Amino acid sequence: MKKPSAKAKTGPKKPWAGRFTEATKPSVEAFTESVSFDKRLWREDISGSIAHARMLGRKGIITKADAERIVKGLRLIASEIESGKFAFDPALEDVHMNIEARLRKKIGPAGGRLHTARSRNDQVATDLRLYLRKEASDIVGLLKGLLRAIADKADEYIDAPMPGYTHLQKAQPVLLSHHLLAYAEMFQRDIERMEDALKRLNVMPLGSCALAGTSLPIDRNSVAKELGFSSVSRNSIDAVSDRDFVIEFASNSAIIMVHLSRWAEEIVIWATEEFGFIEMPDAYATGSSIMPQKKNPDIAELIRGKSAGAIGSLVAVLTLMKGLPLAYNRDMQEDKIHVFGSADSVKASLSIMAEMLAHIRFDRKRMLSAVADSYATATDMAEYLVGKGVPFREAHEITGRLVSYAIKKGKRLNGLSQSEMKGFSPKIGQDIYRLLTPEGSLRTRTSEGGTSLKEVKAGLKALRANIGRRAK
Amino acid sequence: MKKPSAKAKTGPKKPWAGRFTEATKPSVEAFTESVSFDKRLWREDISGSIAHARMLGRKGIITKADAERIVKGLRLIASEIESGKFAFDPALEDVHMNIEARLRKKIGPAGGRLHTARSRNDQVATDLRLYLRKEASDIVGLLKGLLRAIADKADEYIDAPMPGYTHLQKAQPVLLSHHLLAYAEMFQRDIERMEDALKRLNVMPLGSCALAGTSLPIDRNSVAKELGFSSVSRNSIDAVSDRDFVIEFASNSAIIMVHLSRWAEEIVIWATEEFGFIEMPDAYATGSSIMPQKKNPDIAELIRGKSAGAIGSLVAVLTLMKGLPLAYNRDMQEDKIHVFGSADSVKASLSIMAEMLAHIRFDRKRMLSAVADSYATATDMAEYLVGKGVPFREAHEITGRLVSYAIKKGKRLNGLSQSEMKGFSPKIGQDIYRLLTPEGSLRTRTSEGGTSLKEVKAGLKALRANIGRRAK
Amino acid sequence: MKKPSAKAKTGPKKPWAGRFTEATKPSVEAFTESVSFDKRLWREDISGSIAHARMLGRKGIITKADAERIVKGLRLIASEIESGKFAFDPALEDVHMNIEARLRKKIGPAGGRLHTARSRNDQVATDLRLYLRKEASDIVGLLKGLLRAIADKADEYIDAPMPGYTHLQKAQPVLLSHHLLAYAEMFQRDIERMEDALKRLNVMPLGSCALAGTSLPIDRNSVAKELGFSSVSRNSIDAVSDRDFVIEFASNSAIIMVHLSRWAEEIVIWATEEFGFIEMPDAYATGSSIMPQKKNPDIAELIRGKSAGAIGSLVAVLTLMKGLPLAYNRDMQEDKIHVFGSADSVKASLSIMAEMLAHIRFDRKRMLSAVADSYATATDMAEYLVGKGVPFREAHEITGRLVSYAIKKGKRLNGLSQSEMKGFSPKIGQDIYRLLTPEGSLRTRTSEGGTSLKEVKAGLKALRANIGRRAK
Amino acid sequence: MKKPSAKAKTGPKKPWAGRFTEATKPSVEAFTESVSFDKRLWREDISGSIAHARMLGRKGIITKADAERIVKGLRLIASEIESGKFAFDPALEDVHMNIEARLRKKIGPAGGRLHTARSRNDQVATDLRLYLRKEASDIVGLLKGLLRAIADKADEYIDAPMPGYTHLQKAQPVLLSHHLLAYAEMFQRDIERMEDALKRLNVMPLGSCALAGTSLPIDRNSVAKELGFSSVSRNSIDAVSDRDFVIEFASNSAIIMVHLSRWAEEIVIWATEEFGFIEMPDAYATGSSIMPQKKNPDIAELIRGKSAGAIGSLVAVLTLMKGLPLAYNRDMQEDKIHVFGSADSVKASLSIMAEMLAHIRFDRKRMLSAVADSYATATDMAEYLVGKGVPFREAHEITGRLVSYAIKKGKRLNGLSQSEMKGFSPKIGQDIYRLLTPEGSLRTRTSEGGTSLKEVKAGLKALRANIGRRAK
Repeated sequence: MKKPSAKAKTGPKKPWAGRFTEATKPSVEAFTESVSFDKRLWREDISGSIAHARMLGRKGIITKADAERIVKGLRLIASEIESGKFAFDPALEDVHMNIEARLRKKIGPAGGRLHTARSRNDQVATDLRLYLRKEASDIVGLLKGLLRAIADKADEYIDAPMPGYTHLQKAQPVLLSHHLLAYAEMFQRDIERMEDALKRLNVMPLGSCALAGTSLPIDRNSVAKELGFSSVSRNSIDAVSDRDFVIEFASNSAIIMVHLSRWAEEIVIWATEEFGFIEMPDAYATGSSIMPQKKNPDIAELIRGKSAGAIGSLVAVLTLMKGLPLAYNRDMQEDKIHVFGSADSVKASLSIMAEMLAHIRFDRKRMLSAVADSYATATDMAEYLVGKGVPFREAHEITGRLVSYAIKKGKRLNGLSQSEMKGFSPKIGQDIYRLLTPEGSLRTRTSEGGTSLKEVKAGLKALRANIGRRAK
Repeated sequence: MKKPSAKAKTGPKKPWAGRFTEATKPSVEAFTESVSFDKRLWREDISGSIAHARMLGRKGIITKADAERIVKGLRLIASEIESGKFAFDPALEDVHMNIEARLRKKIGPAGGRLHTARSRNDQVATDLRLYLRKEASDIVGLLKGLLRAIADKADEYIDAPMPGYTHLQKAQPVLLSHHLLAYAEMFQRDIERMEDALKRLNVMPLGSCALAGTSLPIDRNSVAKELGFSSVSRNSIDAVSDRDFVIEFASNSAIIMVHLSRWAEEIVIWATEEFGFIEMPDAYATGSSIMPQKKNPDIAELIRGKSAGAIGSLVAVLTLMKGLPLAYNRDMQEDKIHVFGSADSVKASLSIMAEMLAHIRFDRKRMLSAVADSYATATDMAEYLVGKGVPFREAHEITGRLVSYAIKKGKRLNGLSQSEMKGFSPKIGQDIYRLLTPEGSLRTRTSEGGTSLKEVKAGLKALRANIGRRAK
Repeated sequence: MKKPSAKAKTGPKKPWAGRFTEATKPSVEAFTESVSFDKRLWREDISGSIAHARMLGRKGIITKADAERIVKGLRLIASEIESGKFAFDPALEDVHMNIEARLRKKIGPAGGRLHTARSRNDQVATDLRLYLRKEASDIVGLLKGLLRAIADKADEYIDAPMPGYTHLQKAQPVLLSHHLLAYAEMFQRDIERMEDALKRLNVMPLGSCALAGTSLPIDRNSVAKELGFSSVSRNSIDAVSDRDFVIEFASNSAIIMVHLSRWAEEIVIWATEEFGFIEMPDAYATGSSIMPQKKNPDIAELIRGKSAGAIGSLVAVLTLMKGLPLAYNRDMQEDKIHVFGSADSVKASLSIMAEMLAHIRFDRKRMLSAVADSYATATDMAEYLVGKGVPFREAHEITGRLVSYAIKKGKRLNGLSQSEMKGFSPKIGQDIYRLLTPEGSLRTRTSEGGTSLKEVKAGLKALRANIGRRAK
Repeated sequence: MKKPSAKAKTGPKKPWAGRFTEATKPSVEAFTESVSFDKRLWREDISGSIAHARMLGRKGIITKADAERIVKGLRLIASEIESGKFAFDPALEDVHMNIEARLRKKIGPAGGRLHTARSRNDQVATDLRLYLRKEASDIVGLLKGLLRAIADKADEYIDAPMPGYTHLQKAQPVLLSHHLLAYAEMFQRDIERMEDALKRLNVMPLGSCALAGTSLPIDRNSVAKELGFSSVSRNSIDAVSDRDFVIEFASNSAIIMVHLSRWAEEIVIWATEEFGFIEMPDAYATGSSIMPQKKNPDIAELIRGKSAGAIGSLVAVLTLMKGLPLAYNRDMQEDKIHVFGSADSVKASLSIMAEMLAHIRFDRKRMLSAVADSYATATDMAEYLVGKGVPFREAHEITGRLVSYAIKKGKRLNGLSQSEMKGFSPKIGQDIYRLLTPEGSLRTRTSEGGTSLKEVKAGLKALRANIGRRAK
């Protein structure tokens, strides 16, 4: 807000100014305006108003002619905004008033009839629900895109062994494809969560007016139908007070970002010279201004960083709503800042992750040797002993001592001789060796959801089927 | 951890000690133990182990006799714990090892076979899912209880007018029953959210072992069936890495607490002498140690306070998981502390709120006079003018000037004479007066979800039907 | 993925592109750019660069002539930016590269010497410290402004009694001035905290380069002196990894916002018709688009709402840094988004609160009658009895019964007759009545920091002295 | 709701029960009690009460004899609690009432005089300040202990080169000691922050009573002196409303935990087989129940995990206070749960980290070869060229191309021949080779705070001096 000047005289008149005797201070306008961020809602505001105006016309609350004027006027405004010709004015507070003021300028008194039987309280709730419905659906689309990229990459490396880690220590051999499909599980849950949220999101508050409903003979269901809402809100006070849909969206976004942050962490680690499992393609890395040899996994780092922002946004919307009495309070204006931030982060991160994943090359050799040159088949030995009738705890202890011995000898497990092994348990036979390689180990992991090639292929098939089903 | 003493010699042997040459430091044991809080999971741990042992027996992985010994031993341990005779030992780290160690002591070597084809990684995930499934279902039950209390209270005050507030300013007349039903909407959404979460929660990770599945011929589905899981996890790495179900539970809990915090805030405000809408029953208030006249709405305040803790717990579990590589990392041990806190807060708050609500008396007179003695029917006048053909914005402005005039005259709207009103708009007729009382206003709010008695009764009926349906 | 072609030729060349064979993807540029938000740092970036260039010249690392060219070039760029002529280009990533690229265009090869003996890692840390130093100091100034407004308002209402509340229940008479001065205590602590943070903030990382320092003979102290830093960082790795100063700033900001949120809550409550302690001046309130009688305390509500954002930002910066290995990681780029948000909220909120406070009128009569017409002097009666030798707990109980009796009789305490009182304790004499009015009660609260006029005047004097001292 | 009966007779009488006609419900007692967690404050509660009673005696507010009886009684209670004989009763709400009730039982009516001229509102604020003062001071002690461990370890490895990382990519050679000292910087800032907080923490609220001060002639300063407070609070309303000291403590704790989490992350990474920089001593690692070869860095992981809890606790206390009107509200009871959690986590984590650090062995060879076998000296080459007059940006580009060439040839920089290098710049002479080893590079990093041995030794000396100074 730059020029306070002769504001009181020249500034646009506030829609609520009837009773007021003093003009709003420019500092107050600057502090309270929301159009700088809620102008994002212009499409939803206009389509909501069009549906509302039509209904008013249909129900005879305003004349058909006025309704048509309004609809036409709003469409013109839409194209003004689209083409960048529309100047949003902070003195008009928010996107709603900016558009309505323009409408009144364009079509005259009829414009003053648009706000009949509604309030900004139900209007903004409607706009925001429409907006987040679109965002949620875009995010579901991006999640599917990422799932496809995962499926493709898993196919590409379907049989590539690598160390599976717990505590970032090599634990057991797994297939890279199996590891990638673990992320597919997360993102499939993310889709489900977003779809569940959509059920609650896609409910229309419009017609609840300020908080009490209206005495005018409106038809909420026809408006809802036109706007694609699956139902109308059942209680007018709740309808304008509720921001669960914002919180739930922010929470789902935060969970997606946490999933991405875990993967980002792995990419950062795998891209180190020490691990060396992947090389970042030049186009998806950046360099250092002072260390020319660096190829930094910036994208992964930024995704990880953005997860913090998504958690912060969730905190903000929850804390915002904490302890607010019913119904609308102005605090709620701030919800948009936070949830827009969540949506932007999630969309950008999902999109770039899918793109980057498609270009990442894994180093099969490094991964294989990392698991071959380790004690990752110790569990196989323990399970072997169990198969020979040794109680698990005893089998575990025998293997533990064997590993300890091997480390002291500077050997891997399959480098120990049969007689060395026999010293720890007479039950160890020659057939042990076929288990003590990554491939040998992987072959046996046939339990449901395990890392054997067969199971992984089944998992991949199920994933493709799921994406296909959802795509319909 | 009290006595470090000759720990190395005397302490219980760690299940993983095979390879280790040095005993764990007592300070390390004290730092890393979780049994002080995860002992809560003992029921789930035992029933999970029983189902697992039976399957091992059925599949011939252990003998039937061993399986029976294990089951019997575990049942004995359950009754020991139930009766308070079981001493959990922090040196045994966690609830799992405490129970297994006891089992081995009770039934000997067979006890050492229980841990076959599983790992603590899938075991703890299974236990925690079983536990939170119970908690989620208890919370749904408590939400229903609260909904019933709301329905009863709404019935009791079905026709009591009160001011509806926005910005905590009197806005329009509403029915107290309508206001109460706004909360019913929130808690119905909470039930839906918890039920949606249950779909993802009720998936069994057991059999994923450490992260790779197993070579032993286990039957995961039969275990899942016995434990009431609706499916088994599809990817062994995800199964042990995933804590979405914890986060989602914590998020749903935080949203419930935010709903309760809003209501608590209103109770605090309504219980002030200034508002005077409710009197706290003595049994649900506390006094002051120094100001004998006080009756403090402590319960509402504490509920509001606990909402902060629920938000904090959600932050903790999200931040905990942020950036963790797959699969299990020890950080995840901490998830239980936070989610147990969430569950406790929600359950205690829902329960006491329902109980308190049943005992709260509302002061119909105070509420009525608060709305009658106000300008809360101004919107009715504006809508009246709209009905007479005045464009909404103009109607709004006329009413605004009328209110301003009335304030200056020290009158309420229905205290103005016909001629005074005519001065603002000739369209105002004698019929305006029937709208300018709370009852008159309320009668007209017949739009769907509005605050007319008819709409509220319909809402209440729908609520009762919904509770009834869910109760089946 | 293979063609560096087009892009490589047309896009601006990356400063780190030496080793790279592929051009950065536009999607990657869009995802990783920071100039859209870090351009705020342009002043700091330029003044940091000027000081750095001068030092390089002084130390002979570059020629004096080159140093002068650089300084002159940077000054020209500053005026370009100031006048809005500078077009920041996202393809140049950040504010640093935008300015350097422009410099090289303006002054040729000499521009390529500016980045000698520094890295973006120490440069951005320096810029951000300079920026937050200014913000912190502005915030201290705004806090002082608010303290002055509080002092003035306390003076204006120095002797106006009101109810003091606990649990939002009337507890004891207090002076409004005393209540206002409670906020002065909070904001004085906020100043101290910000000043403490400034000690740690005002340390110069420049010269730490990427993380290891440099082999070039730089003179860090002279640069620090020119830039007004009180010292230089002691460890080059910490210098580029540390964001404590961001977190501490965000934490202090969140605490300020929580203070403001409490006050905002009170303003909202006091502005209700039910309390009626203040009337919002028209210029600092807004109206309703549908309820013309409303005068909403939007500013207070928005301030309260913004406190949620400040807590969210703090969470974001803490979570961002959690678990990051040393030294710089790209995640840290995001810190600015959050801390800029904190700073903006705090500054805007402090400023508008001070302005609004100056215009708020309190209703002395309403406040007085609210406390007179209550049991708020019960504690005075209890203390009176203590003065007569009754043990406190007994005195408390007697008073409690008296209050209960009075409520039943529909009287206030000073409406009870002497003989009625004697029935509860023979020690109650005629002199009790002078305590049972707000004025009588207030007169006695002479303990240090108590609410007697004398104590409050002393507190106000101390506040003025403190503001004065700090103003010097 | 009607029968006070049973309970009223059998339960302990509430101190505030005078006016109440109904007994508190057991469910309400269970919900509102705090003694289950605030009993931690018993020492502070008793020492606060002793100082208070003495003052009451000195000022003649109670008799000297009564004061002595109280002091003696409280001391007996202290030893009862110490020896575990004291049974805290939730029906008595909190630690204060438990102790006072016991006192009255022990010494009769005199016990009822202790609560004269105070309230639980100022009492709990006093107790909590005393408690956190002790915790803050313990934490400072533990931070010093950790600094000493760092200094010792830095000494031990004073000249051990390792790769310095940015983006977890090898950037430049640094000394391990320099890296360790980076953490020393963080922990020194943590000490400063905690000491700054102590200034604001060590202020006595006692004597503010419920919120208004008292009419009794108390002497707050003498009590403060006895309790070691450096001053008394200046405003009685603020004194009982303020929880800044809790938030600031929680914030400082969260920052400490974030520092520890970063180190923990590095320990986890360094302990991988791939990095291999450290081996976890057996006594500070744990094993796997199914993978006998594992040695998991559990302590580091748990510390990292606990940082999430500390952030959550901070959120909880901030959100708790958000929007609370003055003065005391019952919500504030919850602050203790969160801040106790913060304190416990910080103390346990600092202590175990110092202990573990003392036992960690670094693998000099692995670290040296990790840096030797890399391009980490590329910056040295660029700075060499700058020394020869090449503009930095050009030097950077030449080096970048050189690195690219070397990678293609499969050589390290010092494996390139003089003529190969000349091909990139004729300015590269034979003297370049002495820079292209870790030692050569390190030797040159002599800028203030850089990683040369000389600078690191100076840093270590400064650290030791600082610890020594603080120890005094």
